[in-house]
Amino acid sequence: MKQIGVGILGFGTVGAGVAKGLLENADALRERTGLDLRLARIADLDVTTDRGVAVPAGVLCTDAFAAVRDPATDIVVELIGGTGVARKLVEEALRAGKPVVTANKKLLAEAGAALFSLAAEKGVDLFFGASVGGGIPIIRSLRDGLAGCRIEKAYGILNGTCNYILTAMEKDGAPFDEVLAQAQKLGFAEADPTLDVDGFDTLHKAAILAALAWGVRPDVHALPVQGIRGTLDAADIAEARALGYRVKLLAIEKRRPGALELRVAPTLVPAESMLGSVSGVFNAAMVKSDLDDWTLYYGRGAGRLPTAATVIGDIAEAARNLAAGTHRAVALPAAADPLPILPAGDVVSRYYVRLSLKDEPGSLAAATGAFAAHGVSISSAIQRGAPEGGFATVIVLTHEARRADLDAALAAIAALPASGAAPRSLGIEDFAS
Amino acid sequence: MKQIGVGILGFGTVGAGVAKGLLENADALRERTGLDLRLARIADLDVTTDRGVAVPAGVLCTDAFAAVRDPATDIVVELIGGTGVARKLVEEALRAGKPVVTANKKLLAEAGAALFSLAAEKGVDLFFGASVGGGIPIIRSLRDGLAGCRIEKAYGILNGTCNYILTAMEKDGAPFDEVLAQAQKLGFAEADPTLDVDGFDTLHKAAILAALAWGVRPDVHALPVQGIRGTLDAADIAEARALGYRVKLLAIEKRRPGALELRVAPTLVPAESMLGSVSGVFNAAMVKSDLDDWTLYYGRGAGRLPTAATVIGDIAEAARNLAAGTHRAVALPAAADPLPILPAGDVVSRYYVRLSLKDEPGSLAAATGAFAAHGVSISSAIQRGAPEGGFATVIVLTHEARRADLDAALAAIAALPASGAAPRSLGIEDFAS
Repeated sequence: MKQIGVGILGFGTVGAGVAKGLLENADALRERTGLDLRLARIADLDVTTDRGVAVPAGVLCTDAFAAVRDPATDIVVELIGGTGVARKLVEEALRAGKPVVTANKKLLAEAGAALFSLAAEKGVDLFFGASVGGGIPIIRSLRDGLAGCRIEKAYGILNGTCNYILTAMEKDGAPFDEVLAQAQKLGFAEADPTLDVDGFDTLHKAAILAALAWGVRPDVHALPVQGIRGTLDAADIAEARALGYRVKLLAIEKRRPGALELRVAPTLVPAESMLGSVSGVFNAAMVKSDLDDWTLYYGRGAGRLPTAATVIGDIAEAARNLAAGTHRAVALPAAADPLPILPAGDVVSRYYVRLSLKDEPGSLAAATGAFAAHGVSISSAIQRGAPEGGFATVIVLTHEARRADLDAALAAIAALPASGAAPRSLGIEDFAS
Repeated sequence: MKQIGVGILGFGTVGAGVAKGLLENADALRERTGLDLRLARIADLDVTTDRGVAVPAGVLCTDAFAAVRDPATDIVVELIGGTGVARKLVEEALRAGKPVVTANKKLLAEAGAALFSLAAEKGVDLFFGASVGGGIPIIRSLRDGLAGCRIEKAYGILNGTCNYILTAMEKDGAPFDEVLAQAQKLGFAEADPTLDVDGFDTLHKAAILAALAWGVRPDVHALPVQGIRGTLDAADIAEARALGYRVKLLAIEKRRPGALELRVAPTLVPAESMLGSVSGVFNAAMVKSDLDDWTLYYGRGAGRLPTAATVIGDIAEAARNLAAGTHRAVALPAAADPLPILPAGDVVSRYYVRLSLKDEPGSLAAATGAFAAHGVSISSAIQRGAPEGGFATVIVLTHEARRADLDAALAAIAALPASGAAPRSLGIEDFAS
């Protein structure tokens, strides 16, 4: 049986998980790949801390470049992160004709184009399955299972921290700050949660999925993004629930005529739908294609072992290709004529709006008049509970409207003498699955 | 760009979908595979009926063997079904060194071992992604994405007809026969629904998943199977709902100490769980592995285009391998020391039981005594509604119990003077995802 040596760069959380999986499940991998995947090298500056993995003697080293160059290393697994030394190591491996597996989302976002062309030039694999959705096979599915399909839409719950917070806010009726603090204590949120709760992590992943689905290379800094901090509170989540919805931080991707809608926003989804049922730290991606209709992929979006599972899946494929003397000709296809991204104001959606209006005759008429004046059609307007402090809460659901029109209507409503607290709005996505 | 010719055998529902997909999405396939997949041949006895696909001139033919032998055919797609001529054609293709893609579950079940060794001997691919779950990438995920994991459990909702019937029974409170008749009228159930509603279709698919997960080759005729006909009625579905569950026809697969639990039965699953949210004709498979915890794959389990999507995914992989001069060394690994299947009586589960007992003192004591006498521990026993005709309905939930013990207890209860209609029971599976 052919031996393939694996060199792991970075012995952190995921690196230890990959080492453990390769060592403990070596027999399962042998049965399924017909190859002997050997842990050849693990490079890390810290080789003394116990990671709970019984690493064979002589495998650990501190020089990552030496680990890449080591003839025992056939496949390089980059788990260092960042775009500094990680990029140099990946380039060195590819130049040496060694396939690379990485989970480094940031590296792909910043240097993906250069690295993929280097990989193509050298005829080696560069796999990145764990960069989106951790343990969920969404990248593999878009690339392989749906290879014959045109992707029409995709929705993703791609950040476990946000989904944990939203689930807890719904369950306990607690405010965002309190739930975030609890999530930080439990280790489900970082000390600086910006990347997660402000939607950027979801956006980076959404951009990778769009690249796979439509061959676009969007500038992530120019994409519309809204997180869950400051955009909604427990009252909105409870109102959504009463209307048969749940609030999820969604990546929304739709092929529109002549443009691609690609954005991240907290959104109402049907509570009884599959996406509405994704709770806690779990992630899911749901894809609609011309042939396969809706398919959904669900699992842990992060964590040592789930991420390691996907990394090892990539290692197994790279190893099979290496043993056969081949590689994937097309890793991340770029469209010859990529669709432009739909500007935020041109997005068309149904909306949930929460208004605070003076409890007096004419208030609602003034507000609904403002919607009408900006071309936003209303499907329902319901006063919730008894007025407090002279102001009533009114929940408005709109028909499909342009975002720019909605914003203009909300600005006009905020300026009404009858208006109390500023209006809040959330998009609504309805789907049958 | 390298051209790969595809020969489709069988121009039925799925065959037409595959032809349509290959023709209409040729550009997407070129972008994603770097290959030009050409529709070389379509063989069917009927080449005159319009299938709604604009087939290029000279592609249609009536001689399937000639289509296999045609030098323009590089990959053979077997969509004839059955085990007669389909098997001969697959063998002829493999012997000629041409990769085969099939959706033929029956052929795999009856001749899989012989065909996979012929494929291995000839060094060609034999792919079967669409044989389980139609448009759901469960086979690909077990084989590739989870290649580095040990599978611990799997649950599957693998038959769209049954899930449609169960969903409608819950929604309308209608009896099985009425919903089946409606499903037949709508085309969601066959005129002879035996394979579907009695659980055999689910069982065949469960066996293929177990083969992939654990390398077993079970005799499907010896596996415990229970369908949805005669095993439950609308009252059970409503009771389950009141208890926070939904009833699903489940394939249940668990690695137990020294044995594999592998069976099909209508089962209570948490209503708010992902599996509990799978409604209508949709299918899902949920897998728990040592590294990746729970992952779930959801989509359309049947239908022309979803099945075609999976077939084309297989064609794309076979084409990439062919172009690279390689093939998958291991298609369906067989374990050296396969686990034996757990006998039905030894299955341990929690149970839902519906009893009909005379509305008189001592009835419930006699029934609970019978459970105790056979070692079945009860977690709750609740009388439902007012007694009718002198008999009360009692819903019993048990703790974990051996199936043989439960059956003995139920037989003892049925023989009690206090017993009315025969006891009904359903297993309960609780899981957090």
